[in-house]
Amino acid sequence: MTKEIIDYLSELIALPSISAFNTNRSFSIQTANKISEKLRLIGAEVKIVDNVIPGKNPIILAKLGDDPTKKTILFYSHYDVQPAAKEDGWDYDPFDLKELDGYVYGRGVSDDKGPLVATYFAVKELIDEGKLNVNVCFVYEGEEESSSGGFEDTLEMHKDFYNDIDGIMILDTSWFGEETPSMDYGFRGVTYMGIQIQGPNKDQHSGLVGGVIREPMEDLIYLMSKLKQFDGKVLINGFYDKVLPLTDEEKELYSNIEFDLEEFKKYLGRNTLLSEDTTTMLMNNWRNPTLSLHGIQGAFSEDGSKTVVPGKVIGKVSMRLVPNQDPKEIAQLFIDHITNEFNKINSPNKLDILTIGTGDWWYGDVNNFLFSAGKEAINEYWQIEPAFTRSGGSIPIIPFMEKLFDAPAMGLGIGQSTDGAHSQNERLRIKNLIGGKEVIKKILSKL
Amino acid sequence: MTKEIIDYLSELIALPSISAFNTNRSFSIQTANKISEKLRLIGAEVKIVDNVIPGKNPIILAKLGDDPTKKTILFYSHYDVQPAAKEDGWDYDPFDLKELDGYVYGRGVSDDKGPLVATYFAVKELIDEGKLNVNVCFVYEGEEESSSGGFEDTLEMHKDFYNDIDGIMILDTSWFGEETPSMDYGFRGVTYMGIQIQGPNKDQHSGLVGGVIREPMEDLIYLMSKLKQFDGKVLINGFYDKVLPLTDEEKELYSNIEFDLEEFKKYLGRNTLLSEDTTTMLMNNWRNPTLSLHGIQGAFSEDGSKTVVPGKVIGKVSMRLVPNQDPKEIAQLFIDHITNEFNKINSPNKLDILTIGTGDWWYGDVNNFLFSAGKEAINEYWQIEPAFTRSGGSIPIIPFMEKLFDAPAMGLGIGQSTDGAHSQNERLRIKNLIGGKEVIKKILSKL
Repeated sequence: MTKEIIDYLSELIALPSISAFNTNRSFSIQTANKISEKLRLIGAEVKIVDNVIPGKNPIILAKLGDDPTKKTILFYSHYDVQPAAKEDGWDYDPFDLKELDGYVYGRGVSDDKGPLVATYFAVKELIDEGKLNVNVCFVYEGEEESSSGGFEDTLEMHKDFYNDIDGIMILDTSWFGEETPSMDYGFRGVTYMGIQIQGPNKDQHSGLVGGVIREPMEDLIYLMSKLKQFDGKVLINGFYDKVLPLTDEEKELYSNIEFDLEEFKKYLGRNTLLSEDTTTMLMNNWRNPTLSLHGIQGAFSEDGSKTVVPGKVIGKVSMRLVPNQDPKEIAQLFIDHITNEFNKINSPNKLDILTIGTGDWWYGDVNNFLFSAGKEAINEYWQIEPAFTRSGGSIPIIPFMEKLFDAPAMGLGIGQSTDGAHSQNERLRIKNLIGGKEVIKKILSKL
Repeated sequence: MTKEIIDYLSELIALPSISAFNTNRSFSIQTANKISEKLRLIGAEVKIVDNVIPGKNPIILAKLGDDPTKKTILFYSHYDVQPAAKEDGWDYDPFDLKELDGYVYGRGVSDDKGPLVATYFAVKELIDEGKLNVNVCFVYEGEEESSSGGFEDTLEMHKDFYNDIDGIMILDTSWFGEETPSMDYGFRGVTYMGIQIQGPNKDQHSGLVGGVIREPMEDLIYLMSKLKQFDGKVLINGFYDKVLPLTDEEKELYSNIEFDLEEFKKYLGRNTLLSEDTTTMLMNNWRNPTLSLHGIQGAFSEDGSKTVVPGKVIGKVSMRLVPNQDPKEIAQLFIDHITNEFNKINSPNKLDILTIGTGDWWYGDVNNFLFSAGKEAINEYWQIEPAFTRSGGSIPIIPFMEKLFDAPAMGLGIGQSTDGAHSQNERLRIKNLIGGKEVIKKILSKL
């Protein structure tokens, strides 16, 4: 049985469906075709639909069963992978699955072809055993590693392919630690802004204008210095107003997180943590909003020295947001704050504030039927109390799907935190692959 | 006569001696050879010496006459040019000299092949007329447009080629305006610094560390905001201590500067001038020191959005310096200031302050024999009182040569301010080319 599972995974790994490279397009199409064929073998109705963005990989839609008396569960995964090459420092060919010491190695084994294969065999085995008591749907995209380009509009266009969805299972994460199975219940949202200062209409030489004009960089650096305190507090008026207070129930979830602070410090290479209390640290990452300064476009950014006085500069700033901050509302607060600061400094330069992007946070209900079933299933199979985890990053397609289908989502981790999903020697413990399949079977059986 | 001059200039223009492009190396060598041949024709002893930096263009050394009872004048110019291509927006082939309406067009006609040719014919005619009463030396480099790479060390190595030098004439500038001949008596110095902040040992994702660590960009932006007031005042302790006060004599020099403020504002495209009083503005550019923020290395600098938390960032800052600020002393004041500010903010990140480069200012004595002769010569030939001008930029090789040869320098402008030396359709008024030659003849005759 395990052999059959690894064989399928191996076939998928052999296809370098790297969405970042247009030249790998045909491998992505082959991957989509192979996944579709397999799904048809277990009786699913499958459609490969064009991405609304030309040149982006297609999306696989599939459904199995339409009994209105049963629950309908939608599985989300992606079939594209991060770039990888032996020369990057892999010990093995990243596109030739290698089995060693209880692990499989290859690009995509953990992110996200392994979870997709685990889902497939869970459903297949339930069918074979005559125990599939739910309707199952699938949506597999091929652009997740490239910001899910076109996913939302394409899925919205084909929404009617699916019957009423009752729950969405996200199979695209790993356990937060090494030995504790975890379920994801949240991601932060994001609002990405640009502070644009325009002075002279082209770049100047500091020999010519140095001391003569008010340089755009001076204004920008000033404005960027007015956004955050060194203790992490964001200085934008009203920024924290809608942040949900911590409840006892939520706080309790932090008591079961497997996290090695020393390992994390070693990983960072320098201890610049704002707090070394693990719970505080995790809360700062998962449930508190923050702001980061990413860089400046239009200024000198290379090695060496260049005496340029940039004519137009854009400071890049993003904020990670949490329930119930509204990303668009936060953009407006940011605009108000920067405009206000800019007015104070009486500059002859021109300010424009750009909203470069916004994405919703996701906050799942850990008490709903999906998490309840997941918790029971994990307890039964692994004999371990699962961790309920969040992430400081953003996956806006989850709240998007929740709204589109009016159904709650849950994230089920498959691999381990050290799988190296976007790194060299990506791996997946075979125990986790099989365990993932078993847990999915149990969850579906409980619904 | 004019035809012969333009023919020589035309031969030099036909050779694209672009020092920025290694692939143009052979054209640079051909140019050096041609100039050397011509100098030999008028009896000069010429040596083409290798640049101490491998791959950089050679330097032409030449001398004519060794009468110890006569003054010895060294002419400096460069035979390399800025890049140029028809596709950049030239109306003519930049390497095929075009004569039109009293101007010649082509890459290098004004900067710096025209001045070199004017010098050549001035000396040649004086010889032909039996009126050369000075010893003449030449140093022509081929890397001026690439920061004079290797010039100082190479020249120092071959210093003994020359007899005692009494004065250095810099033939590499244009008039400050359109109709007033000018002589240059100063450039600012420069100290270029990097403020390096190192946090985690590699770039991080703001989803992972946002809110968790003290981000290096926060420290850097803070430090960069503590360097300069919006009115232009530099906040570094002791920065102004050694700046020479303005004398009445120096102030008087500003009364004869041809400068069109409205044109300059039009050129900038936005009026962000710190002062609209022309004299104040020129003084801020020429005789007052300043500081510019150029950009940040290591941070996100491209279009679009990237949620990176850079691990190591380097803020690039330079200061333009004036008599009697010492560039190395200023570097130390900068280090002290930034270190002091950094200590205030109690950061776990690592600060390193890099001195990326320093270059001396040049401040000529407008009352010495070269400027006196130049003033008389310009008055006689052009019937116009010359302007004494400085520049806000830096040419450290001038003070270097003054020290190396223990002789004063003077800059003699040849073309006009609108020649477009580094731009498309570079041009030189033929009247200026001939006038330049005549003024050089008169200066040499007066010594």
